[in-house]
Amino acid sequence: MRYAYLGPEGTFTEAAVASLKPPADAVAVPFPSVGAALSAVRTGQAERGVVPMESSVEGIVTATVDDLTAGSGLRIHAETRLPIAFALLTAAGTALGDVKAVGGHPQAQAQCRRWLSAHLPHAEWVPQASNGEAARQVAAGRLDAALAGEFAAGKYGLSVLAGDVHDNGNAVTRFVVVAPESEAAPAPTSTDRTSVAAFLTDDHAGALMEILTEFAVRGINLSTIQSRPTGDALGSYFFFIDCEGHIHDARVGEAMMGLRRVCAEVRFLGSYPRCDGRRTHVRPGTSDAEFAAAAAWLARLRDGHG
Amino acid sequence: MRYAYLGPEGTFTEAAVASLKPPADAVAVPFPSVGAALSAVRTGQAERGVVPMESSVEGIVTATVDDLTAGSGLRIHAETRLPIAFALLTAAGTALGDVKAVGGHPQAQAQCRRWLSAHLPHAEWVPQASNGEAARQVAAGRLDAALAGEFAAGKYGLSVLAGDVHDNGNAVTRFVVVAPESEAAPAPTSTDRTSVAAFLTDDHAGALMEILTEFAVRGINLSTIQSRPTGDALGSYFFFIDCEGHIHDARVGEAMMGLRRVCAEVRFLGSYPRCDGRRTHVRPGTSDAEFAAAAAWLARLRDGHG
Amino acid sequence: MRYAYLGPEGTFTEAAVASLKPPADAVAVPFPSVGAALSAVRTGQAERGVVPMESSVEGIVTATVDDLTAGSGLRIHAETRLPIAFALLTAAGTALGDVKAVGGHPQAQAQCRRWLSAHLPHAEWVPQASNGEAARQVAAGRLDAALAGEFAAGKYGLSVLAGDVHDNGNAVTRFVVVAPESEAAPAPTSTDRTSVAAFLTDDHAGALMEILTEFAVRGINLSTIQSRPTGDALGSYFFFIDCEGHIHDARVGEAMMGLRRVCAEVRFLGSYPRCDGRRTHVRPGTSDAEFAAAAAWLARLRDGHG
Amino acid sequence: MRYAYLGPEGTFTEAAVASLKPPADAVAVPFPSVGAALSAVRTGQAERGVVPMESSVEGIVTATVDDLTAGSGLRIHAETRLPIAFALLTAAGTALGDVKAVGGHPQAQAQCRRWLSAHLPHAEWVPQASNGEAARQVAAGRLDAALAGEFAAGKYGLSVLAGDVHDNGNAVTRFVVVAPESEAAPAPTSTDRTSVAAFLTDDHAGALMEILTEFAVRGINLSTIQSRPTGDALGSYFFFIDCEGHIHDARVGEAMMGLRRVCAEVRFLGSYPRCDGRRTHVRPGTSDAEFAAAAAWLARLRDGHG
Repeated sequence: MRYAYLGPEGTFTEAAVASLKPPADAVAVPFPSVGAALSAVRTGQAERGVVPMESSVEGIVTATVDDLTAGSGLRIHAETRLPIAFALLTAAGTALGDVKAVGGHPQAQAQCRRWLSAHLPHAEWVPQASNGEAARQVAAGRLDAALAGEFAAGKYGLSVLAGDVHDNGNAVTRFVVVAPESEAAPAPTSTDRTSVAAFLTDDHAGALMEILTEFAVRGINLSTIQSRPTGDALGSYFFFIDCEGHIHDARVGEAMMGLRRVCAEVRFLGSYPRCDGRRTHVRPGTSDAEFAAAAAWLARLRDGHG
Repeated sequence: MRYAYLGPEGTFTEAAVASLKPPADAVAVPFPSVGAALSAVRTGQAERGVVPMESSVEGIVTATVDDLTAGSGLRIHAETRLPIAFALLTAAGTALGDVKAVGGHPQAQAQCRRWLSAHLPHAEWVPQASNGEAARQVAAGRLDAALAGEFAAGKYGLSVLAGDVHDNGNAVTRFVVVAPESEAAPAPTSTDRTSVAAFLTDDHAGALMEILTEFAVRGINLSTIQSRPTGDALGSYFFFIDCEGHIHDARVGEAMMGLRRVCAEVRFLGSYPRCDGRRTHVRPGTSDAEFAAAAAWLARLRDGHG
Repeated sequence: MRYAYLGPEGTFTEAAVASLKPPADAVAVPFPSVGAALSAVRTGQAERGVVPMESSVEGIVTATVDDLTAGSGLRIHAETRLPIAFALLTAAGTALGDVKAVGGHPQAQAQCRRWLSAHLPHAEWVPQASNGEAARQVAAGRLDAALAGEFAAGKYGLSVLAGDVHDNGNAVTRFVVVAPESEAAPAPTSTDRTSVAAFLTDDHAGALMEILTEFAVRGINLSTIQSRPTGDALGSYFFFIDCEGHIHDARVGEAMMGLRRVCAEVRFLGSYPRCDGRRTHVRPGTSDAEFAAAAAWLARLRDGHG
Repeated sequence: MRYAYLGPEGTFTEAAVASLKPPADAVAVPFPSVGAALSAVRTGQAERGVVPMESSVEGIVTATVDDLTAGSGLRIHAETRLPIAFALLTAAGTALGDVKAVGGHPQAQAQCRRWLSAHLPHAEWVPQASNGEAARQVAAGRLDAALAGEFAAGKYGLSVLAGDVHDNGNAVTRFVVVAPESEAAPAPTSTDRTSVAAFLTDDHAGALMEILTEFAVRGINLSTIQSRPTGDALGSYFFFIDCEGHIHDARVGEAMMGLRRVCAEVRFLGSYPRCDGRRTHVRPGTSDAEFAAAAAWLARLRDGHG
């Protein structure tokens, strides 16, 4: 089992792979971008892909949403989340006063801004493609310090000069695990999430209301809705939606069919257990048993014995 | 084939039976009330019942709606409509000046009020259980004149002293033909109506909106909605609803199942061709073919090959 | 103070007038029809009109709704309700076995059907324009018995041969009191009802939803909705609506303006205290104070100091 | 007039300032981040701020939305848009074969990926804080080439080695111009946009529907809706919304008041002319004249002369 993840080694995504407790013989393979990690699953270089989906600070990771929506052949099978805690990593023996240049992913700078102003007001910020890359540059002697997770220190033989240097102590990132669509999907639980991308036929007033009504009329809560540009022009959009429940649930299945009928295009991205364990709210009248009873009743009416 | 109708002979309902062009060996049997005519079908005394459903002047005929909803075992199979034109019927030789007492159903008085004030301002109005009964009383010498359809003159050996005495020249009544629910229902056409009674679970704000949304989200037009008391107390209601389409239409079937899930009780009263021939409006995305395509797509998604 | 009511003496409507506890010098004047009673107020023959509005058995009284909607110059100022209890009234000395012909309003027959079948199975039913009229005919010796309220016995010098002969012990009728629209309307209380008639511009799918949304978006409960024919043709409708609250409530006023903008025509029929005393539900965000705070906020935004 | 913009010199934002045709004596001052440029307006260092708002490729610029929403004292007064066209800039005399290291903002790499693979497959990518910064590094001899707009070449004394190196020829970015909220807002035109941030009181099913209904019931089209994390925890959101129309339009003002009543918090971000010139759709029944007529009608009803 090979896991393709957004690398390099030492990123939070690698830590996310570890948190999934993969089998002992699993191999985690870093890729330089979200798109590369996902392509590896599509082409069979890897069986699973692990990429960030949503940050409590930055919101949806657009590279992930856009690649899953535009590409094909993949389904989300699981999700996990990690608290995002930054440390300042240096070569052994470096003191704060020695740090003239510090690097990391641009989001690392954004999330550690107050600490940097207070403790390294004069250090140059050198943006890097990832926090792992920043750590690698420190190890190679090309940077004095890197902002990264503490777990990256071991990977690159660095020291933790300062821990918990992030401004917001509650920052969390959610990661998704994708698999080829030909594999069997995870079975429904009572705590699932379904992700879908919906393309409107036009943008008449109320088109978005129509989409949301397909969920609301069946008592399905949404946890995310995001208009995303299709890339063609400003103002041309699709909607990325996370809802509660599983495509095997009767109410979710019927809502998906409703979307399919009213939208120009619907891309199903997967149904999978939520990592927060929050149970799906089932409004009275929307359980599988109630759907089945209604279907049996309709069949009797249509046969003329109702 | 026996047709039980709201009698006696000489009523508009009898004319409605004739307009249905029943088979040559059919027999039309008058009953004294809507309830009695419908019971005759339930008990097997008749194969069909014909009763008024809606008047363009008075609206829904509550006796018909309430009996169909409260009772069981019947389905509407057809509808027909008649213009409502009143004549003043008398014994041969009667002149206007001879008319001291005129009778008819209370609605006849309501629909001929202006003519009566202008031409018989001093005549006593004697309400009767039906217009046919009024004609019978004239024939028996107990009334001077009756308001009824011209066709009643022949039945009772009366003359038409004045025709078209109604105030509103466009009055129309719609009649329904009911059959035992064990009989096969009429096949779908492209111009059907479906009648249903829906009982709410409670009257929270928005309960009615929920019901209507089950129709609207599937593009189904309503032609009638009527809150009707359940008879238990003021403010306890059910809703009588006529919508476009047939229960065999995918969108109508799904809407019926939706009603069944959100309502305390749903009574299906029948799907049948409209007498006005107006074609059902099918909103894009709600045809049977689009429902079938969406179901096939969902099946592929659930199998993991979508 | 003259009260025009649906007569004659001895009807439930007269009892409704008494239940209103009119001033000592008030005079109650019977009129032969709902329309005549309402016209009396329009023409100044009376200061108030009292007519039935809704029966727990028959539903909305269409004559009242249609006259108030079609006419002008009147507003509902109050409502009251009475339990509907029938008695069998006869001349003194009459025994059950003597009753060959019994009369009353057609609804009286409908509401006493079981008692009549059990105790007077062979008596002829003679429909009358009102229960009071039936009692008058008994007093005049032209009928053996009348179905009417017990209070009618005293009016016509009759005896109560049997009391509580109605089938449904909970039947109730609601009556409204109307006044000229030039009079000041009743002040808002916390338990008001507002009646309105709304004419659609067309019957596209969702037109009714649009109307209901004007209420729902502002948290206003509806207690009645009724499609009523305009009289022009089958399928041409207006909607009679009762909602909670008073036109002086901010949320009701804004909803009325919304109706006015989306409908072809809106007829306001009045805001008045409910006779059942049920307090208006005020959803969070819809109180007068919250409307006022929002208006003040908007004014600041528009001034550029928000 | 001082314009604070997202710098440094040579960025697309600087080009956006130029496209606004500022007065001759205007000064454009670069700031290192969106937050710094906006703060400059809040503190009076500048009279206007110009920052990117939306990219046709990446969507909403979260730094801009989040700063405008969290901060206070600013209003959007205008918007402008620019096609995003990248060039490869080098020192004079550099040939493609000499380029070992190329830099730019991470989005520049994302938007030129195909050209880079085809023409510079072996060059190292060195992410920079902005395209202008990359150009500066080339001028300083620390990078071989930069991806930036052609207009940056002149600023830094560089040559255009290759033009139009971006993959998507239609990429466009929209920029907004902000001013202190104490200044008079732009007057309404017939082609306005209004931006607002709405915080839900809770996330019950249908909370988002409630917000959207406040717009839909008044016929207001939305052009953007985006759930954005509040930063407190995953799944805690506000909604950033762009709608058609101006806060001085009656329908928009009423919708804003509705939002204010149903939301925990509403931040008005501005009403301003659209740069695409698309005229606001005004649904029948929602013009200022119709709102005024409805208000006059309501006033008459409340006075009792309606």
